[in-house]
Amino acid sequence: MNAETSLTLGDPPRLHDADALIADMGARARLAAKALAVATTAEKAKALRAAAAELRMRGAAILDANARDMEAGREGGLSSAMLDRLRLDENRLAASADAVEAVAALPDPVGAEIDRTVRPNGMTLARVRVPLGVVGIIYESRPNVTADAAALGLMSGNAVILRGGSEAVHSNRAIHAALAAGLAQTGLSADAVQLVPTQDRAAVGALLRAQGLIDIIIPRGGKGLVARVQDEARVPVLAHLDGINHLYIDRAADPARAVDLAVNAKMRRTGVCGATETILIDRAYRAPLVIVDALIAAGCEVRGDAAIAALSPHVTPASATDWDCEYLDAIVSIAAVDGIEGALSHIDTHSSRHTDAIVTEDVATAERFLAEVDSAIVMHNASTQFADGGEFGLGAEIGIATGRLHARGPVALEGLTTYKWLVRGTGQARP
Amino acid sequence: MNAETSLTLGDPPRLHDADALIADMGARARLAAKALAVATTAEKAKALRAAAAELRMRGAAILDANARDMEAGREGGLSSAMLDRLRLDENRLAASADAVEAVAALPDPVGAEIDRTVRPNGMTLARVRVPLGVVGIIYESRPNVTADAAALGLMSGNAVILRGGSEAVHSNRAIHAALAAGLAQTGLSADAVQLVPTQDRAAVGALLRAQGLIDIIIPRGGKGLVARVQDEARVPVLAHLDGINHLYIDRAADPARAVDLAVNAKMRRTGVCGATETILIDRAYRAPLVIVDALIAAGCEVRGDAAIAALSPHVTPASATDWDCEYLDAIVSIAAVDGIEGALSHIDTHSSRHTDAIVTEDVATAERFLAEVDSAIVMHNASTQFADGGEFGLGAEIGIATGRLHARGPVALEGLTTYKWLVRGTGQARP
Repeated sequence: MNAETSLTLGDPPRLHDADALIADMGARARLAAKALAVATTAEKAKALRAAAAELRMRGAAILDANARDMEAGREGGLSSAMLDRLRLDENRLAASADAVEAVAALPDPVGAEIDRTVRPNGMTLARVRVPLGVVGIIYESRPNVTADAAALGLMSGNAVILRGGSEAVHSNRAIHAALAAGLAQTGLSADAVQLVPTQDRAAVGALLRAQGLIDIIIPRGGKGLVARVQDEARVPVLAHLDGINHLYIDRAADPARAVDLAVNAKMRRTGVCGATETILIDRAYRAPLVIVDALIAAGCEVRGDAAIAALSPHVTPASATDWDCEYLDAIVSIAAVDGIEGALSHIDTHSSRHTDAIVTEDVATAERFLAEVDSAIVMHNASTQFADGGEFGLGAEIGIATGRLHARGPVALEGLTTYKWLVRGTGQARP
Repeated sequence: MNAETSLTLGDPPRLHDADALIADMGARARLAAKALAVATTAEKAKALRAAAAELRMRGAAILDANARDMEAGREGGLSSAMLDRLRLDENRLAASADAVEAVAALPDPVGAEIDRTVRPNGMTLARVRVPLGVVGIIYESRPNVTADAAALGLMSGNAVILRGGSEAVHSNRAIHAALAAGLAQTGLSADAVQLVPTQDRAAVGALLRAQGLIDIIIPRGGKGLVARVQDEARVPVLAHLDGINHLYIDRAADPARAVDLAVNAKMRRTGVCGATETILIDRAYRAPLVIVDALIAAGCEVRGDAAIAALSPHVTPASATDWDCEYLDAIVSIAAVDGIEGALSHIDTHSSRHTDAIVTEDVATAERFLAEVDSAIVMHNASTQFADGGEFGLGAEIGIATGRLHARGPVALEGLTTYKWLVRGTGQARP
């Protein structure tokens, strides 16, 4: 079927397969995106504020829907961590509505001029930001992604197609209904934010193959989800698979700062993608045991190479796989390295190119680290836990990308745009 | 096989299949790219000047090699257009060497700071341009692409893997040998610019599947080549398939300017991707026949819709397929449209989103066209033939992209880079 078929029928057509469903949703999203691309900042902000108000007004219905998901999750044997991600309460729902309103207050990237030049023949060239078009979000567990992703997509002028996890199906539908009700109060099409209506896994495959219909796919969830998306997608994907992040403590590190940053980078929250997983300690650093002891005292299991294991009986010997492991837990691997060279070499081999940091008071060593480490985020004397769009001042983030194309690191409104070249002439013909 | 195997052997290993060949080349390119990423502007420029000098010194050998390709091409029945693209002479070779030197003089994008902010906690964030890594170029016919692409790749800090067409195999090898000899005189690795040594088509497939080894593929050539690359690639592709470009002549167009731009946009060079293929004339424009007659007088075949065909017996009636055809020839399709609305609608349906232009003296209409046409390049009162990186002041171009991710429009040095976030702190831990 094609878009026109679905658009000329009063009722939704009977869709017999996932490809037809996604083709229909994609065509409607494309039409909505055309209108969104030229919507004013005020129109988009108004729609988001209306959506936030609906989220608040429909709080009881959303929490009821969430209670059904939680019950099914408990019966289905979801882990307590999964259940915690799934769970909504009044505070979480209020935070979600606040977040939607906060996005409405962010600077609109659409129409911003990246650069402007005047050619010798008098033509003016300007590169101006425009929306990507149609953004597909595939996510699991956390129902607040439904509102977050819709808000970021809409504010950057994109139509959004959301595909949440089956464990959150009722929550997602209730949140989506609130967003749609908010849009309906403004001039924007309800097709600007669509939720895939089926939990059939074939719909995910159809989204991933929807070249020309969907401009970019952003997966949000665990490694299994991201790996499947990256592996199967024919549409470009913005994502990171791992956050195997390193903190290198140089010989010239300030000892108090080194302890503070090591404990914070590893232990502040162990389940976030910006958490440090491996600490590298310069063999010439004078107080490595203090680092190890502070981590153990903070409740962290330390797995060390031979040199580190020799420091303390509380260190477990690391195996070869530890250096490529994203624990997302209170576990750290620690290796002794031969100065900056050793650190660079280890990071080059094992980093997932998300976030790596150095602790040193030697500015030349720090600048070398910043220049040579090829990761999306490289830090000097700061905790890797800052790897986050909000902390970077982007207002919000749709994810963190470790690929090399388009956007890298925290992706927010700007990362959901592309640009076009506007040429203003006065009749120039090319000689 | 892995990179180390090939690097520890004195002789190239016997490679039994295309994937192993590309894996070996990719691993060597990755190592070369690491060194290139931190090479200074002066080092890269010196290497390019040495390569240009070698191109000049080896002119006779390169022309001999080209003569072999030309002879094989004539025997193989290549078209005269293909033979012209394949042919080198002293002027073309000198122009190629000059182009390599010109790239050496361009501003180095690597290390340029895109933006810098200071967070409330005192951390400084800077986004700094870095090379993409390893760039694969798949091209046909024109042997000068070998030098052009290598120069742009190298100057932007990328290692390049080149795969030219079999019709130009001797020319490409001779040019590549000159480039390699130039690199050998400097500190840069010969692996920074590699030419796929086999014409086996399986090598192209292996390049297209080389995720993780190659960061981006840029196809340069005809529609068949680009379509195959876009269809098969698992590596991101930067390209355009078609240049179905439109020139819309609005009711408020200046008649002399309209004729001038119509003839230039269509006829200056008909075989370039920036050539106009369809002219849209506002039904309210007063002198449509002058446009038609000027094009016919310039040697152009005009295919018109009913309204245009009624103007002149020299107009052929257009068929439905004409509106989606990239002629790359002295043929134009012309349709009458209902003002700017009609033009926007036609362009939205038929444009390949490469370059579209409006001719009008009405600034409000022009600005609406610039805002609403969703193409990589949108022009007002200028010829679509300016769609070119050199004309845009980029110094050179590796191609023009019509995709929405990463770079759009003419792609030059900046488009061959990505960025990383550098965070400079003073011990900040995240609360």
